[in-house]
Amino acid sequence: MSTGKTSSGLAGIIAGKTKISTVGKESRGLTYRGYPLEVLAEQASFEEVAYLLLYGQLPTYNQLTQYRRQLQSLRGLPKELKLVLEALPRESHPMDVIRTGCSALGCLEPETDITPQQDIANRLIALFPSMLLYWYQFHHQGVRIETRTAEDSIAGHFLQLLHNTPPDEISRRVLDISLTLYAEHEFAASTFTARVVTSTASDFYSAVTAAIGALRGSLHGGANEAAMVLIDRFSNPDDAENEIMAMLVEKEKIMGFGHRIYKESDPRNAVIKRWCQQLADKIGDNRLFPIAERIEMVMRREKNLFPNLDFYMAPAYRFLGIPIELYTPVFVCARIAGWAAHIMEQRSDSKLIRPMAEYIGPENRDFVPIEQR
Amino acid sequence: MSTGKTSSGLAGIIAGKTKISTVGKESRGLTYRGYPLEVLAEQASFEEVAYLLLYGQLPTYNQLTQYRRQLQSLRGLPKELKLVLEALPRESHPMDVIRTGCSALGCLEPETDITPQQDIANRLIALFPSMLLYWYQFHHQGVRIETRTAEDSIAGHFLQLLHNTPPDEISRRVLDISLTLYAEHEFAASTFTARVVTSTASDFYSAVTAAIGALRGSLHGGANEAAMVLIDRFSNPDDAENEIMAMLVEKEKIMGFGHRIYKESDPRNAVIKRWCQQLADKIGDNRLFPIAERIEMVMRREKNLFPNLDFYMAPAYRFLGIPIELYTPVFVCARIAGWAAHIMEQRSDSKLIRPMAEYIGPENRDFVPIEQR
Repeated sequence: MSTGKTSSGLAGIIAGKTKISTVGKESRGLTYRGYPLEVLAEQASFEEVAYLLLYGQLPTYNQLTQYRRQLQSLRGLPKELKLVLEALPRESHPMDVIRTGCSALGCLEPETDITPQQDIANRLIALFPSMLLYWYQFHHQGVRIETRTAEDSIAGHFLQLLHNTPPDEISRRVLDISLTLYAEHEFAASTFTARVVTSTASDFYSAVTAAIGALRGSLHGGANEAAMVLIDRFSNPDDAENEIMAMLVEKEKIMGFGHRIYKESDPRNAVIKRWCQQLADKIGDNRLFPIAERIEMVMRREKNLFPNLDFYMAPAYRFLGIPIELYTPVFVCARIAGWAAHIMEQRSDSKLIRPMAEYIGPENRDFVPIEQR
Repeated sequence: MSTGKTSSGLAGIIAGKTKISTVGKESRGLTYRGYPLEVLAEQASFEEVAYLLLYGQLPTYNQLTQYRRQLQSLRGLPKELKLVLEALPRESHPMDVIRTGCSALGCLEPETDITPQQDIANRLIALFPSMLLYWYQFHHQGVRIETRTAEDSIAGHFLQLLHNTPPDEISRRVLDISLTLYAEHEFAASTFTARVVTSTASDFYSAVTAAIGALRGSLHGGANEAAMVLIDRFSNPDDAENEIMAMLVEKEKIMGFGHRIYKESDPRNAVIKRWCQQLADKIGDNRLFPIAERIEMVMRREKNLFPNLDFYMAPAYRFLGIPIELYTPVFVCARIAGWAAHIMEQRSDSKLIRPMAEYIGPENRDFVPIEQR
């Protein structure tokens, strides 16, 4: 029993098999269902990617049209869910809200033995932007928004609900690409969490609710918010360079750099950086993008570290007018596609995920009755 | 990267270190903080055990008195939480309700940098019975119950809220013992889930919410409900034996037997079986307990399998008048003590839990634009 293999943080331990994606494999990079992510991000829409992740194949034109219509039809909130969202305070962390909303939906529209699991996946993909922005606008604008829009993409739908006006084409495009970049990443901690929950034969909502809680952590999805806070501290590139050098001397952690799996670069970074620059040019930014580039240069020069996906995502979301506290929830709106694919895959393996611990506590102690303590 | 060690379900993989408990270790059995569980169950109250798990030492008499008072003072529900619980339908799975309530509390009383984590643990230990039974009685009796009681034990508090009358001594005692038996079990799937979520630097509520979702599964906490459904099917021991024999021929799974870690017996079973028998004698049961014993005998004879904790817990809870759908939520009211100890322990290790996957999906595929598919 105590002769097992030990690994801190399970680094390097293969916890299962997957057909969904590759991360950092030699000669392969990041692929979803066998397609290079860079190609999907530039040439496919997020809805195509979600379909690919869930069903294993890219949709035909007709399938995609049908799928978009299906998602559009699933954007309405049950009235009890609205009551729950209204009861959660304005000051709540939006990740806590989306976690609670997902859990509540599991009470209102529970999974049964005859529920097709893809239907729950699609309901969550369609509903998360509505849920999040209903709560946000109720508490920030004091209005109960209509969560059905004419936008046929999730990116467009999100921006429409946020800004209460149809987005321009480049904004819709960049958010769409960011959703594809965030959609899936193998056994990331949140996905692994969803798989552990699923391995107990629990329901779909329990697995997704748990995954949201894991993504919330600053060592996982919370990193994009932390990167924005960092970049926002500086007034210009020289200021940024001086401060970052000082932070490195103090051994402070610089958010948005390096990765557990990637050792040389994050393949997603080049894509989002290019689009972030286009947004900067469009709105005439001459502060955030140059600061971000300078920080990247300093980190490469001083620590040989590369920016990960979160680093340029942060200013890109700022340029899209997304409030910083919604960055990680947007990540949820994307990663739900990957989580759903992994939950369904895990269900095809009936094995409970249950590791062991190395015991380092006290040896057998004699119990002393309370009167004698 | 792809040269890691593989393990299906992480069986035999040591995923970390713990000082909290031992499970199935040679010459040690099940211990909490070094004390044999059988001794704790018979000689300590659940509040002593919760204190031991959280603080590492058994309380003195004065410490215990103080701790009971503290827990008693934490049983009130915020009004927004009542609104949320009232909005969740009567037909909801109570595990979905307690998962949602825990998540909502994370919005209402969020953890901050200066929140002592033990305070959140104690709030959840105190509040889960109130939360669960507020929802239950609202939808089943149509009343908004007062969730503060004079009962100074969690077991008594639970039974008082459930039956709206102070429990007798043996009922209080058996529920108390069952809470101790359920309080902690090393890296069980739900506890491991809580540790994975915690490893991302997420908050206390996210970890507990995720753990509840994992416990819900029929391969984990849901097993006690499944055992009751099984036992309830039979009218007498002979009927049970015939049917179980037929089920074994059909290779149907018999719930409540065997265990991933224990190979010869579950040390918790002897304790709960003895108390289950006492309850049966007290209420004059001559059906369920004899049926359960016969099933145990048949399973040992035919499959060399032993009953685990869940098997006799099921009739014990029936004798206490607990509705079957609340069995797993009662498990939550106990295991929160163990989860909390593990969350705090995991926080002393800053390492992200992030395993790898073996890729078995398609090789690199060429992207075909949608117009050409």
